[in-house]
Amino acid sequence: MTMELPEILRCPSPSRWLELCLTDLDTLLLDHAHCEKKAASTVLTFSFRAAEHELAGVLSRLAREELSHFEMVLRELERRGQRFRPLEPSAYAGRLAALTRRRPLPEAMVDSFVVAALIEARSCERLGLLANAVDDPELVGLYQSLHAAEERHHTLMLELGARFGPIDDALGRLGEAEAKLITAGEPWVRMHA
Amino acid sequence: MTMELPEILRCPSPSRWLELCLTDLDTLLLDHAHCEKKAASTVLTFSFRAAEHELAGVLSRLAREELSHFEMVLRELERRGQRFRPLEPSAYAGRLAALTRRRPLPEAMVDSFVVAALIEARSCERLGLLANAVDDPELVGLYQSLHAAEERHHTLMLELGARFGPIDDALGRLGEAEAKLITAGEPWVRMHA
Repeated sequence: MTMELPEILRCPSPSRWLELCLTDLDTLLLDHAHCEKKAASTVLTFSFRAAEHELAGVLSRLAREELSHFEMVLRELERRGQRFRPLEPSAYAGRLAALTRRRPLPEAMVDSFVVAALIEARSCERLGLLANAVDDPELVGLYQSLHAAEERHHTLMLELGARFGPIDDALGRLGEAEAKLITAGEPWVRMHA
Repeated sequence: MTMELPEILRCPSPSRWLELCLTDLDTLLLDHAHCEKKAASTVLTFSFRAAEHELAGVLSRLAREELSHFEMVLRELERRGQRFRPLEPSAYAGRLAALTRRRPLPEAMVDSFVVAALIEARSCERLGLLANAVDDPELVGLYQSLHAAEERHHTLMLELGARFGPIDDALGRLGEAEAKLITAGEPWVRMHA
């Protein structure tokens, strides 16, 4: 698999992230399952905040796709003899969300979609790194197929954000914050540590 | 279509509900779209509150199905030249939710699933009434297919609730409250007015 860093990301993941994750793929998968479910839920939240016709259908299909991914990760957990259960999330997504403008609505939506795009782009990079690093062929297949989906999603999120206003400033400000969080890192096995 | 009142409901809908709705099917469809989206979102909420393996997959598939219904209603709105937009909801679901126990978690989950079952059962009854009352063959088809789904869903909700504890008391208490809300009614065109 060729790996290109998604254009909106300011830095690649530090190599220590991958090294740590490879020591505990079960926990990484459990966290990943939670991330897919949260992605579906976040997408639905967007459509509650902006109940607009074109957006509603796009976001509903996207939420369904994220839920299918969640179910794929659940099946992979099962195959490995693991079970879905509560897990403390990394601080990453919450810290980015805390930087979004809350009002007026158009600016809030721009920021929220940009944060979603950054998170999907980071997932895209990391799923690619994992696909190239793990041995288990089924896990490689899962990571490859989800990598392709995240590649589509982060572009879609930017397009949707741009419907609410110019996105370049938000992309600069939030992209820089994202790079700082990733460079600092979190010392545990999580998709976005 | 034969119509049987779902067993968990204490009273049929007053005939004035159907009469009022037939005067403004576009508003009814718009409210219906919001209801399907809220159903998906509520189902996801359940799986955040109880991150349990078997439940997670069932609820994810259910949320995807509710989203498909949302998209079906969106397409019907489009066919009728209408667009999805914000709409003030009826008080019904919020009033039922306010009667659920918040803790401990097992009791809270029993009550939440019982409320969801009652709402789905009421939707089931009303979609059947609408399927028999409207003229437009496409709308009849939509209502019939969603009626069948709600029939499955309200039974499933009861089964899921019963995983957390005995449901009979909750069904008695909340079923009675549901019947009172429906008998009093709300004077506007809404699925659950």
